[in-house]
Amino acid sequence: MELLDICKNAKAARIDMLKLSTGEKNDALLAVAKGLLADSDKILDANRKDYENGQKNGMHQGLLDRLKLDEKRIEAMADGIRQVAELEDPIGQEIEHFVRPNGLKIKKVRVPLGVVGIIYESRPNVTADAFALTFKSGNVAILKGGSDAINSNIAITNSIRNTLKGLNIVADAIQLIENTDRQVTTDFMKMNDYVDVLIPRGSAGLIRAVVENSNIPVIETGTGNCHIYVDKDADFEKAIPIIINAKTQRIGVCNAAESLIVHEDIKNDFLPLFEKAMKEHSVEIRADRESKALMPLAIDATEDDFGREYLDYIISVKTVKNVDEAIAHINKYGTGHSEAIITENKENADRFLALVDAACVYVNASTRFTDGFEFGFGAEIGISTQKLHARGPMGLKELTSYKYQICGNGQTRV
Amino acid sequence: MELLDICKNAKAARIDMLKLSTGEKNDALLAVAKGLLADSDKILDANRKDYENGQKNGMHQGLLDRLKLDEKRIEAMADGIRQVAELEDPIGQEIEHFVRPNGLKIKKVRVPLGVVGIIYESRPNVTADAFALTFKSGNVAILKGGSDAINSNIAITNSIRNTLKGLNIVADAIQLIENTDRQVTTDFMKMNDYVDVLIPRGSAGLIRAVVENSNIPVIETGTGNCHIYVDKDADFEKAIPIIINAKTQRIGVCNAAESLIVHEDIKNDFLPLFEKAMKEHSVEIRADRESKALMPLAIDATEDDFGREYLDYIISVKTVKNVDEAIAHINKYGTGHSEAIITENKENADRFLALVDAACVYVNASTRFTDGFEFGFGAEIGISTQKLHARGPMGLKELTSYKYQICGNGQTRV
Repeated sequence: MELLDICKNAKAARIDMLKLSTGEKNDALLAVAKGLLADSDKILDANRKDYENGQKNGMHQGLLDRLKLDEKRIEAMADGIRQVAELEDPIGQEIEHFVRPNGLKIKKVRVPLGVVGIIYESRPNVTADAFALTFKSGNVAILKGGSDAINSNIAITNSIRNTLKGLNIVADAIQLIENTDRQVTTDFMKMNDYVDVLIPRGSAGLIRAVVENSNIPVIETGTGNCHIYVDKDADFEKAIPIIINAKTQRIGVCNAAESLIVHEDIKNDFLPLFEKAMKEHSVEIRADRESKALMPLAIDATEDDFGREYLDYIISVKTVKNVDEAIAHINKYGTGHSEAIITENKENADRFLALVDAACVYVNASTRFTDGFEFGFGAEIGISTQKLHARGPMGLKELTSYKYQICGNGQTRV
Repeated sequence: MELLDICKNAKAARIDMLKLSTGEKNDALLAVAKGLLADSDKILDANRKDYENGQKNGMHQGLLDRLKLDEKRIEAMADGIRQVAELEDPIGQEIEHFVRPNGLKIKKVRVPLGVVGIIYESRPNVTADAFALTFKSGNVAILKGGSDAINSNIAITNSIRNTLKGLNIVADAIQLIENTDRQVTTDFMKMNDYVDVLIPRGSAGLIRAVVENSNIPVIETGTGNCHIYVDKDADFEKAIPIIINAKTQRIGVCNAAESLIVHEDIKNDFLPLFEKAMKEHSVEIRADRESKALMPLAIDATEDDFGREYLDYIISVKTVKNVDEAIAHINKYGTGHSEAIITENKENADRFLALVDAACVYVNASTRFTDGFEFGFGAEIGISTQKLHARGPMGLKELTSYKYQICGNGQTRV
């Protein structure tokens, strides 16, 4: 189908979505989960094609692993959809209401965003995942997955659409852009007359391309140059496990720590402990001059290191004179994702919480907690690093907008 | 100053803004108001230059009127700033808090957006107005006004900056881009590393240009193709005054009505009353076939008429079979601004409120109420017609974002 028709269908379908009750949406999600399991042979066949094409095209083993589906992964997709069915429905919630002196009753209620575009890379499970979240929040999804997973994505989308059709629910609640031509992706980003928001999920390069080319409002997700600042009043027994967790529990994620900031008053006592812990976890240390002197294994950090999201077993180290210098360093080099202070000093903790400009600011905890599930949202469509609309982990509520419903009895403006 | 330096200064100033208390911000606003009055000679001199240049360049009388300042208009600017000082400060408000099973205490608090760019056209009072709203909400403003008002804008900005300097408050809380080269405006829209949100205020052409060129998240404001649907169960004594008000009280504004939709069951009784009212207010009627037959003064509406925001003494008329057809027409041609139903039928009213996709949906009231002051926000930076971030009238709260402050005692992720 032509891109324009996909967009027009989506815009029309948004009104049908408004008519669904919470119960109807949940029943549909459970049916979709069941349908995916029933269609697993077809989906696995399609996935095999993608996998073979990937092998032929010399795709990296890591990417091939992410691409590959099996019975267990399809079950995990179905489970994910069932979990979303159990979450609270944000749509229709009254956010506030007030009565004006002229008698107008104004109610602010939560509504879907409308048409949500999602551009993502090779993992086909995103297709089912993104559908569940957008559908539960009353939105219509237009998906543009990576060309490497096109057959898998078509099979998954067809399964979902067939289930919806069987229930007499608008199948255009989910549409996949099947044309893998790059130009189509660029054209898609100009469809602001039809699409209300665009969420890119994937590499920094993908996200940058979307931000630079989209006329549709974008929610930027994902880049995290996260710092841990060990204050002069830090409890080292908290600091070391937190740093190990934030740096090494999973290195390739946006909420992993990339840089240690240390107060100069404690550097002599703390850095040897830190170096030992990093050595035990095979983490390379790139240190500024003051800190390097205390860590024989460290190498020199360059200016460039402080702005880097390594996503690797590497950490940079910066020494500061006080909490204000730590805050200034973070506000200069951070990406506004997740930042932590380790301290027993209430005043410094409060200053850090107030003055660090980031989605999530921590005292004595690992930055790894920035996550929709860890926050109790039950689901996550991404972690926003912009300040418009949603910031930090985005669950169902972050996929909504609001409208004002105003009731009068003939009021006119004077 | 170079654009890049302006943006860097703004980004640095955002942290200084976080340090100001509500009292300090309010005192500064009152001092700025006083300063503008004290500087009124300088401002009027500068404005005279702009006015003379406008005359020389053959500027329209309407635009010249909007450009012109006098003592009274400067007093109105100062009054506006004082009113903003009296409004509640949204910054620091706790939106919600929760404790996770692992003991992490998570607080969601309101924070400034950071750096707000505003691109606007010739009215110089916007300069003072935009400053007051962004400053009170803890934001830093970068203003790009129209070249026609450049001297006035420089004089106003200098006055504000001097007052801030005198109070030892960061003067870069407000910066004006003085370079009137068009390329600079385009370059400004690419400064997403420094600017958190861009708000265009002005013509539809300006807004479109910003949406198409900006890499910075944009809040789209202003276009309103607003409808009034007179249902079969309408009270005509409410309908006629509401239509007169919505169409004629101020024709050039985004919340004015542009189109009437009428239920066919009542067209015979209602349209003659409507035509008489429009005639009395010199409003031209462009009607579909069914309704035109009942209104001798009406001319034929074309397809194009239904998509038009006239901003003029013109109204289109469309006949429908039922409320669903009215809703579908509005969802097709509306701009998601303000839409009204006139009915005594609760079921139809509820259906309209639920299924019309617009920022503000009215029952038995004029669309002209879509306004920050009428909503009781005390101020307005614009009316958003997008669904991301803010929708409808935007006051101080809509100029904020939030952050999560998370306190632990050593938690690490498992």
